Amino acid sequence: MGPHPAVAAIRLAVRRVLHDILNDRPAPEADPHERPAAPLVLVACSGGADSMALASALAFEAPRLGIRAGGVTVDHGLQPGSGLRAEEVVLRLRELGLDPVEATAVTVGREGGPEAAARDARYAALDAAAERHGACAVLLGHTRDDQAETVLLGLARGSGIRSLSGMAAVSGGPGAARRYRRPFLQLDRQTARKACMVQSLPVWDDPHNADPAYTRSRLRHEGLPALEKALGKGVVEALARTAQLSRDDADALDAWAGQAESSVRDAAGLLECAKLYALPPAVRRRILRRAAIEAGAPAGSLFARHIEEVDRLITGWRGQGVINLPGKVVAQRQGGRLVIRQG
Amino acid sequence: MGPHPAVAAIRLAVRRVLHDILNDRPAPEADPHERPAAPLVLVACSGGADSMALASALAFEAPRLGIRAGGVTVDHGLQPGSGLRAEEVVLRLRELGLDPVEATAVTVGREGGPEAAARDARYAALDAAAERHGACAVLLGHTRDDQAETVLLGLARGSGIRSLSGMAAVSGGPGAARRYRRPFLQLDRQTARKACMVQSLPVWDDPHNADPAYTRSRLRHEGLPALEKALGKGVVEALARTAQLSRDDADALDAWAGQAESSVRDAAGLLECAKLYALPPAVRRRILRRAAIEAGAPAGSLFARHIEEVDRLITGWRGQGVINLPGKVVAQRQGGRLVIRQG
Repeated sequence: MGPHPAVAAIRLAVRRVLHDILNDRPAPEADPHERPAAPLVLVACSGGADSMALASALAFEAPRLGIRAGGVTVDHGLQPGSGLRAEEVVLRLRELGLDPVEATAVTVGREGGPEAAARDARYAALDAAAERHGACAVLLGHTRDDQAETVLLGLARGSGIRSLSGMAAVSGGPGAARRYRRPFLQLDRQTARKACMVQSLPVWDDPHNADPAYTRSRLRHEGLPALEKALGKGVVEALARTAQLSRDDADALDAWAGQAESSVRDAAGLLECAKLYALPPAVRRRILRRAAIEAGAPAGSLFARHIEEVDRLITGWRGQGVINLPGKVVAQRQGGRLVIRQG
Repeated sequence: MGPHPAVAAIRLAVRRVLHDILNDRPAPEADPHERPAAPLVLVACSGGADSMALASALAFEAPRLGIRAGGVTVDHGLQPGSGLRAEEVVLRLRELGLDPVEATAVTVGREGGPEAAARDARYAALDAAAERHGACAVLLGHTRDDQAETVLLGLARGSGIRSLSGMAAVSGGPGAARRYRRPFLQLDRQTARKACMVQSLPVWDDPHNADPAYTRSRLRHEGLPALEKALGKGVVEALARTAQLSRDDADALDAWAGQAESSVRDAAGLLECAKLYALPPAVRRRILRRAAIEAGAPAGSLFARHIEEVDRLITGWRGQGVINLPGKVVAQRQGGRLVIRQG
């Protein structure tokens, strides 16, 4: 008798990603006297159902592929007893057979709000752990449900398809472009939960996940269920598919803008308005955005309405004056050229 | 004292669109003996607040620009007394000074569900009315709130950014590519309602708009409010902005796919797998979709998962067999070429 379908599903998802990781590794040097060390893959585990399921699947699959499996749990220090909790997660991961396993404590700042600050601290700690142990990848337990929530959060920003593209299945850290892998991005949260249950893995429900002070929590417990009630059960899957399609579209348009940019600059490197005008608006606005960021405008403060105003220097020219952008950047039209620079 | 801000807002929105309509018209023939007839613009009016506000603004602005203003109300025949209701709307539009004004009765079929069937019948009637009266444009009262709902409906399909692009500010009918105009697409529903109130215009609340049997109604009364509660008040605006950005992006990518398609075909017109492989996924999948539709696959039945399966003939070739697509279209890889044809 094979494993329970939920366990089979989480193992298959992890197996696929481990194969990808092995394929991505450079071929070992052909020294007949030295046996290359088995590569190490870490799982980032909060002790919640998603990452416990992930840890259990990694513990099962990794040895079969000649991979060493380790685990890291991050103690955010945001709740009383979080240190004890982290130690308990360490024990659970050891019980699964992972090695090395460690808890790492971080100090969460305030920049960008509580969720962003916790995330920044967490990834810094995971990057450091990966470097310390020489891990070739870190697995993250985000599910399709997390992805759907991320798409809705991006939708609320209204800043275009890049913000609809959610989390990538593969993403980077400093010095390691493909460090992070999300094997469960196409798997629903319910399957991860079920896999823990049938494997008798105790899991911890983070009280933050139900705290209505957090936007994501409100979305999970109120926003998404109401949307499902109005639109039908397929909403989570549709949002996850939207993420993937939007990511590919955004990548293609960014590539186009990158190529087109050199063709719309004159010999002195200035943007020529007539050539910009001939481009599709989607490509032109991306070039304008890149130019503003290059001139020093912070990407996070540069909104669609800023770019639209600069775009009107091209498409609705009626002698407008200087346009002020974030980061003290100014844009103006001069003799058929668009000048974007520090003001 | 000027008009109430809500009235000023609806008039400004209509004035801008009327200017666009005049700019779009071909220059009249220079015959000094004949005075060209004033152009006619119709408003489509249900008697609800949005379209009554639109009618009132058209009645005010059109004469100032040498435009004749008329109105059409469509009797869908879906409720008892709908004929009387239509006659009442006709009276209201005449009181506003519109001329010509007419009610037109339609028979709503069943194809595509109740909402799609009513919409198809309505646009056919509006097209016919525009032809009959020689109108150069038909104004529609869709607001930013309607647009936000349309984006969420598109999101629930999960079929990519084209379905996120909502309604266009300008769209076509048979034989008239820019017939329909939506002056209120950036105006919120509350402003239209307010403008009716301060002008003492009686409005009719369509009971369908509150009927939970309709997806859009559930979205309006439950889905969107829950999303606003979770994500904040700016959600409607963010969704409307997403629509505009997605539309521009989808247009640009469609144009790219159109141009790239000829470059990936061999002398016999067959798609070359190696050249397809070199394209960004977003462009390649659009080319595959176009090819499937050209071979006879109905666009509405062709989902992202179909295209993904065909795409794997290019990106994950391991000797797959024939892939069956809707409309009895088949796709297969033969000698480095992708063949998509009627099976």
